[in-house]
Amino acid sequence: MIKVGIMGASGYTGLELVRYLVGHPAVSIGFATSESNAGRCLSEVHPAVPPLPLVAMDSAPLVEVDVVFLCLPHAASAQKAAESLSKGVRVVDLSADFRLKDAAVYQEWYGLEHPVPHLLGEAVYGLVEFARPQLCEARLVANPGCYPTSILLGLQPLLAADAAVGTIIADSKSGVSGAGRTPKLHTHFVEVVDNFSPYSIGRSHRHLPEIEQQMRCWNQDSPQLIFSPHLLPVPRGILSTIYVPLNNGWNEVRLYELYQEKYEAERFVKVLEPGKLPSLAHVNYTNKCVMGLTVAGGTAVITSAIDNLGKGAAGQAMQNMNVMFGVEETTGLRRN
Amino acid sequence: MIKVGIMGASGYTGLELVRYLVGHPAVSIGFATSESNAGRCLSEVHPAVPPLPLVAMDSAPLVEVDVVFLCLPHAASAQKAAESLSKGVRVVDLSADFRLKDAAVYQEWYGLEHPVPHLLGEAVYGLVEFARPQLCEARLVANPGCYPTSILLGLQPLLAADAAVGTIIADSKSGVSGAGRTPKLHTHFVEVVDNFSPYSIGRSHRHLPEIEQQMRCWNQDSPQLIFSPHLLPVPRGILSTIYVPLNNGWNEVRLYELYQEKYEAERFVKVLEPGKLPSLAHVNYTNKCVMGLTVAGGTAVITSAIDNLGKGAAGQAMQNMNVMFGVEETTGLRRN
Amino acid sequence: MIKVGIMGASGYTGLELVRYLVGHPAVSIGFATSESNAGRCLSEVHPAVPPLPLVAMDSAPLVEVDVVFLCLPHAASAQKAAESLSKGVRVVDLSADFRLKDAAVYQEWYGLEHPVPHLLGEAVYGLVEFARPQLCEARLVANPGCYPTSILLGLQPLLAADAAVGTIIADSKSGVSGAGRTPKLHTHFVEVVDNFSPYSIGRSHRHLPEIEQQMRCWNQDSPQLIFSPHLLPVPRGILSTIYVPLNNGWNEVRLYELYQEKYEAERFVKVLEPGKLPSLAHVNYTNKCVMGLTVAGGTAVITSAIDNLGKGAAGQAMQNMNVMFGVEETTGLRRN
Amino acid sequence: MIKVGIMGASGYTGLELVRYLVGHPAVSIGFATSESNAGRCLSEVHPAVPPLPLVAMDSAPLVEVDVVFLCLPHAASAQKAAESLSKGVRVVDLSADFRLKDAAVYQEWYGLEHPVPHLLGEAVYGLVEFARPQLCEARLVANPGCYPTSILLGLQPLLAADAAVGTIIADSKSGVSGAGRTPKLHTHFVEVVDNFSPYSIGRSHRHLPEIEQQMRCWNQDSPQLIFSPHLLPVPRGILSTIYVPLNNGWNEVRLYELYQEKYEAERFVKVLEPGKLPSLAHVNYTNKCVMGLTVAGGTAVITSAIDNLGKGAAGQAMQNMNVMFGVEETTGLRRN
Repeated sequence: MIKVGIMGASGYTGLELVRYLVGHPAVSIGFATSESNAGRCLSEVHPAVPPLPLVAMDSAPLVEVDVVFLCLPHAASAQKAAESLSKGVRVVDLSADFRLKDAAVYQEWYGLEHPVPHLLGEAVYGLVEFARPQLCEARLVANPGCYPTSILLGLQPLLAADAAVGTIIADSKSGVSGAGRTPKLHTHFVEVVDNFSPYSIGRSHRHLPEIEQQMRCWNQDSPQLIFSPHLLPVPRGILSTIYVPLNNGWNEVRLYELYQEKYEAERFVKVLEPGKLPSLAHVNYTNKCVMGLTVAGGTAVITSAIDNLGKGAAGQAMQNMNVMFGVEETTGLRRN
Repeated sequence: MIKVGIMGASGYTGLELVRYLVGHPAVSIGFATSESNAGRCLSEVHPAVPPLPLVAMDSAPLVEVDVVFLCLPHAASAQKAAESLSKGVRVVDLSADFRLKDAAVYQEWYGLEHPVPHLLGEAVYGLVEFARPQLCEARLVANPGCYPTSILLGLQPLLAADAAVGTIIADSKSGVSGAGRTPKLHTHFVEVVDNFSPYSIGRSHRHLPEIEQQMRCWNQDSPQLIFSPHLLPVPRGILSTIYVPLNNGWNEVRLYELYQEKYEAERFVKVLEPGKLPSLAHVNYTNKCVMGLTVAGGTAVITSAIDNLGKGAAGQAMQNMNVMFGVEETTGLRRN
Repeated sequence: MIKVGIMGASGYTGLELVRYLVGHPAVSIGFATSESNAGRCLSEVHPAVPPLPLVAMDSAPLVEVDVVFLCLPHAASAQKAAESLSKGVRVVDLSADFRLKDAAVYQEWYGLEHPVPHLLGEAVYGLVEFARPQLCEARLVANPGCYPTSILLGLQPLLAADAAVGTIIADSKSGVSGAGRTPKLHTHFVEVVDNFSPYSIGRSHRHLPEIEQQMRCWNQDSPQLIFSPHLLPVPRGILSTIYVPLNNGWNEVRLYELYQEKYEAERFVKVLEPGKLPSLAHVNYTNKCVMGLTVAGGTAVITSAIDNLGKGAAGQAMQNMNVMFGVEETTGLRRN
Repeated sequence: MIKVGIMGASGYTGLELVRYLVGHPAVSIGFATSESNAGRCLSEVHPAVPPLPLVAMDSAPLVEVDVVFLCLPHAASAQKAAESLSKGVRVVDLSADFRLKDAAVYQEWYGLEHPVPHLLGEAVYGLVEFARPQLCEARLVANPGCYPTSILLGLQPLLAADAAVGTIIADSKSGVSGAGRTPKLHTHFVEVVDNFSPYSIGRSHRHLPEIEQQMRCWNQDSPQLIFSPHLLPVPRGILSTIYVPLNNGWNEVRLYELYQEKYEAERFVKVLEPGKLPSLAHVNYTNKCVMGLTVAGGTAVITSAIDNLGKGAAGQAMQNMNVMFGVEETTGLRRN
């Protein structure tokens, strides 16, 4: 049995992670923390989860677990990661703290000095499909952001094939759970319902440097990205429509072959046949990424859908754990 | 021209009231207040309203207006009402402060001493259809609550006809704007969407004493009320399904005649023919109350729909103003 | 392994049933039928289900399965049930065809002669919590309606305790999947969203005789029922608010004891402590019924929530199967 | 008074048009047609509209009106347009029949020969802001499509300034009313809610040739367009996110000046200051187009929002009528 702890269990990511973990046959939950709800039971916080006792972070029995999942705000996460590693506990961090390799870039985008920059080098960027070798031995895994997961899985084959010849555009649409559970005016039901809003478009969203860093890992000469997030009036799900100007000779059939070759052995990435397009209904409540491929006017239009709480957060975190601990990768992840 | 002020313009009720008032040909807006947004423009607070400058309550030029609409929290409202009246400004209060006639009952349900109990006697309960004679001269009007408006218009004919013979049940369902614009967990999009929740059911909601007080005005021996509010995943609208045990001899045709006689001259109350039922689509964005009448098993089932922000708040407030100032009652209220 | 067939797999009930059945460790699916989609794959019909081949009803290998689930329109269902039984295949019928014991009542409410009235006597009404002894040997199980399940589980303890002294009112609200997958104007997104509509209220909905028949099984002198369904703008979930006039001596604590005694051993019925109320979020995507108990003005207000596709249809159908085949009752039903 | 007729009044476009027209002080409605509802009253078809009698198209008194609005399927519309013109009645056609200037292109995209190609030359493409001179005398106006309106208003200043240097991408998201009122599986509430779906992306949607034709009117060397529509789970509203690769020297301030110069005198086009972005809440239930301007990575990101039933259909149709008949252009169109 893998003994796990969850820090920050009462947010949407934490709640979803608990739901995944309780369905995992080889996991036992050692503790779950929530500062605002310590002493209560998780099912009092949300009716659709098991009645797990919640403790304050400081009284969590860290040493008793094999791995801790951090669903904490950035900066707070980095500190808990360092503490956990020092006690021999492996870490899957669902915050942004270990995704950027360069502490200066972190400071530029997150507005504060990185608390533990010496750990940045060791952190594995846990986009599982492209990180398995490093994950086996990893002590510290940076679980990718939700938008980056949807976009990077869609871009990798084209970048690796050196097929992109100009500015790439990712027009992404996300459900509201991605904005967190703390009540804000922009997540108020009356403001969101019947509405649809772009925000932080262009090159201003914090996920941009994370995505471009990974793009350059796959292709040093990768074109720049323009990334436009939008808020959808749905509780969960991300769909990214990605535009990639292609060099010569591509059509939908050849594109499909490229993607199939890359992904056909993957259990959580599904490439639809030419002419078919994904939707949130393909992926919600699953750990899957489903993609459609269109070519028009010399441009690839990749449509990529994930559940932001599944493959975009809690599902991928548990998938990372499975690989880290040598458990069959799909264990506990086959919902539906 | 009637010169009006609005206190508390940036909540849902205030925003809707502004929309109504700017469409009124005989109204000019003297000021609009918002403590949290003073110095900004109303259209910065919400994109679907005119660019009205917002001032702090204390700097609002009260003496320059003929009437002030109070969209403030209870207790705060009562104090501003007293101040306005002392300066010769008439008041339409959209809070609960002047709806209950008895200061002790107010204290019991609202948990604090009434700030200005001497004004309770003079306040007119502005359910317009049953308050016109008093409204003409009224200095202070208590605009009815949203749930009470939907229930009382549905009950009045039966109570006046002395037809109810046992406990009356009002099972009401309301859109989320009724819960206010301040972000709370229970109004977070992700908590509300796909969900439906009862709350304060039985005899525990603050609107209960308001409704029963008015029921007894129409029939001293009125049966008690059981009132069950529920939160609907819609932005606006209330539908109340009201069960009234009947004495002998009633059927749908006779019930329809009773209601038609009472309401056929009313411009904002529509009684549907037997067999037809109202829905929120009948009333949203209007000042109308639409009702359906069903009789089954010796019980009248009255279905009564309003827009909680229209006839349930801002619409009725402006309707009250029209009567108070001798303007044709429907002026500015004919949307759609 | 239990070998099962599903007739009518491409409607909402059928799709949900397939999702449940593929997660059942002791079930293998022999066939799934769909007249309009025969020859296609179920995942082409809906993206969130497994790629099961669909066949026409007439070419389904009935004799190869142990049990068949009928998700067919009424009348069609009765005929397929008779055919299946004649071939030695047990039947769980999710239509209304075998719920009413009296063929004349069936004809009155469904407008046609019952196709196989001789089977009515043998059919077991599969409200599992109250039917286990009969289910073990049952050849033919009538899976209860969704509204009836939510209401009957809420009423049984009070009826059995002879506590109800007057007309019972069930004010029920259902998600749109209860109206079926065939496109109709009243299920068009634009007509449903932001809306809320009563329909067939009073004593006119087809589920009324089904509910009253069962009420009288538990208490010959049961009061009559008034039943008011409403359409909620949500995809799934039913919440019934049930009003029962009580004889003397009841309060919330005593009521809670009564319900706890009845249900505490049940795995799929949860009674909330006094003061707590259920919502759709408690039950959606589960096979659970969650109830709240309130007493006010001499009346019990029972709030009862289920997922109309779970405990209200497919979940309960599989629960019935588990009992019929001697499998542990919760097998495959523990989602979340 | 302008006497108007509406053909096809019971679809979403027709219903919205009726709501606009009944609020127009200089309009009287001569007739409204609906084949499926002839003999009924419009308020029976939809509760939120006035009780207008509906007649069959063939019995509509065409000669009695000054102008007829055609809300009919394509091809049917062309024939009625010809008939109306022959009787001296001016026409505003809300179908696609007169938007394309080339009958061969029409045949290619709509799959049938144009019924009255001789009228194509005379039809004015009624994007009002750029068509006023021709509209005054026009007998036949082709009301622009909803997607084209949102995209073309956003592109015109850049195209006219010859600033676009490569493939233009319009990633558009539309509410469900754009798909019409006839029930289909893809407009079923349960299929749409919680979902988000791309469709006809790339260069395959019928609005593509309409948009490109107009782009070339403004700039003969206009780059090609890639156009990706998506279905939003909202009843109304379109937001297009438009990506235009810019030649040198552009920044947000200069872009804002360009757009302000073009649009500041326009009553129904509002350009937001740099840093602000539109949403559906800015435009729904209005005839406005609201735009935001962003520049990043050498690319303009124009966000353009309209109500698909307002400026995208019925509102613009009435705006066209106002100009055609010399009425002040905003008459009847100032809904908040």
